[in-house]
Amino acid sequence: MKYSIGVDMGGTNTDMGLVSENGNIIQRRNIPTNAYMELEPYVRDMMREIKAMVDEQSKLDGEPIQLEGIGIGAPNGNFYTGCVDNAPNLTIKGNLNFEKEIHKYLPVPVVLSNDANAAAYGEYVYGGARGMKHFIMFTLGTGVGSGIVVDGRLVHGSTGAAGELGHAILYQHGRKCSCGREGCLETYTSARGIVQTYCELKGVPVTPDITSKMIGELAHQGDPVALKTWETVGDQLGLAMANAVTFSAPEAIFLMGGPAQVGEPLLRPLRAAFEKYLLNIFSGTCQIRMSELRANEVAILGAAALLKMKN
Amino acid sequence: MKYSIGVDMGGTNTDMGLVSENGNIIQRRNIPTNAYMELEPYVRDMMREIKAMVDEQSKLDGEPIQLEGIGIGAPNGNFYTGCVDNAPNLTIKGNLNFEKEIHKYLPVPVVLSNDANAAAYGEYVYGGARGMKHFIMFTLGTGVGSGIVVDGRLVHGSTGAAGELGHAILYQHGRKCSCGREGCLETYTSARGIVQTYCELKGVPVTPDITSKMIGELAHQGDPVALKTWETVGDQLGLAMANAVTFSAPEAIFLMGGPAQVGEPLLRPLRAAFEKYLLNIFSGTCQIRMSELRANEVAILGAAALLKMKN
Repeated sequence: MKYSIGVDMGGTNTDMGLVSENGNIIQRRNIPTNAYMELEPYVRDMMREIKAMVDEQSKLDGEPIQLEGIGIGAPNGNFYTGCVDNAPNLTIKGNLNFEKEIHKYLPVPVVLSNDANAAAYGEYVYGGARGMKHFIMFTLGTGVGSGIVVDGRLVHGSTGAAGELGHAILYQHGRKCSCGREGCLETYTSARGIVQTYCELKGVPVTPDITSKMIGELAHQGDPVALKTWETVGDQLGLAMANAVTFSAPEAIFLMGGPAQVGEPLLRPLRAAFEKYLLNIFSGTCQIRMSELRANEVAILGAAALLKMKN
Repeated sequence: MKYSIGVDMGGTNTDMGLVSENGNIIQRRNIPTNAYMELEPYVRDMMREIKAMVDEQSKLDGEPIQLEGIGIGAPNGNFYTGCVDNAPNLTIKGNLNFEKEIHKYLPVPVVLSNDANAAAYGEYVYGGARGMKHFIMFTLGTGVGSGIVVDGRLVHGSTGAAGELGHAILYQHGRKCSCGREGCLETYTSARGIVQTYCELKGVPVTPDITSKMIGELAHQGDPVALKTWETVGDQLGLAMANAVTFSAPEAIFLMGGPAQVGEPLLRPLRAAFEKYLLNIFSGTCQIRMSELRANEVAILGAAALLKMKN
């Protein structure tokens, strides 16, 4: 039987999964990313866990499994070079050549992209975007990421870093962003941005005990400030999404990530704003949909899906 | 010898050209678009002119020429359907099926797209974007159009209408746009938008005798209000271009059209703004360049270039 490996490299943990052809995660393992300062021991331990999954599955199947390859979703992962380039959130520094390092252990195809691109491709191969040629994925979380599929292919651009819609400037002279500029979408619709909007509307200082999850719960209890917060966020995200449509005229825009889990308090104003800001020629041509992959599976499935790319 | 036909369908005139393999316009003809109310006589007369060019060239070459096909750049031209769909500026109304109509006269390939897409593809096949896989073209004129090339292919999107960056909203609650919404890039960086900015800065009403060309001449004479106008336009366009980079990470953004001819008074602030608004990971990866095709040739060459598309 044929399987692939999906690796979700986060700043804290690295989750690995053995994925079947039909997109089920059969086995999972993980190692603590932040326990490593160098690539060699990190990949050594990663490969030890991957080999253990492969051996275990071969035993279960009664024959050596066929391994399609290893797909990796990583912050600053560069599709063209197969490297992770100076990711600020990683304890392992420098330009990390994963492909070269992995090939010391296993001569299988290695494909690497950033986490949002991987999520988008996971939706394409295993989720709600199956059969679509044009769609965009927005991931809301600590930051705001995006992955863009045009003509059935992930858009990596000339540098490999395309699809950074979280850093499209929504409001010139807007909120200060961690990227050093002002007004990026991320400063409004990331978990932190949502908390800031809530605190501004409520007139209280931002404190660590206020979370976007809590603001979601408050909204479901009918709290007017929380509801107003999601209305504001929906309006901002709807504007950003309508602008994205002018670029690639997608069939759908998918949404995933923690803050998006709030559901209707966000989706209702988001859909209304999207319609309001959408150029009339696109009216009715693009749906806003939630990701159909499980939150705890999308990263591994997305990474594994990268192996299905044809170029 | 092999030739193609490029047709630039404007609201007023339709320009046709016989284009050689190396991108020279060998012959030109035109008919008045706005003299027609229906597609049949329009295409009949268009084909009469095209046939005259073909016959003439065959005579000159001493043998029947090989015709690669007819490429058409038209407002609301839809690449997928081969139709022009309800273009507001045309006297010929409805959904116009060019391919079907042309095939009554000549059984050659017909490819159709909107004018900005055609201009982008002309730059790709015959101009400064040769060899690039990722670039964007902005056309400034009565409106603001754009054509986007990703992985060496024009982005048409799911509907055929992708690449409408002139209608990305730059300022929420900004200037009223002809599309019915507010704050579109077009309301600031089209010829009309530039005139409006100049008049606002000068504190005078907008009158028909004030043109973007005149504001360009004033800027070259050192007029401070004109210079401030181009600075403002450069800042706005630079922001829009930096946002476009987050989408597709192009190697270059090309600029063309009447108002762009002003040169340095626009380009200097534009490049400064672009650098200022560009996400740091893209710094130094994308140039702003002027179109290398002649203003009076780009539309015909772009239309002819559409025939070079592989899908």
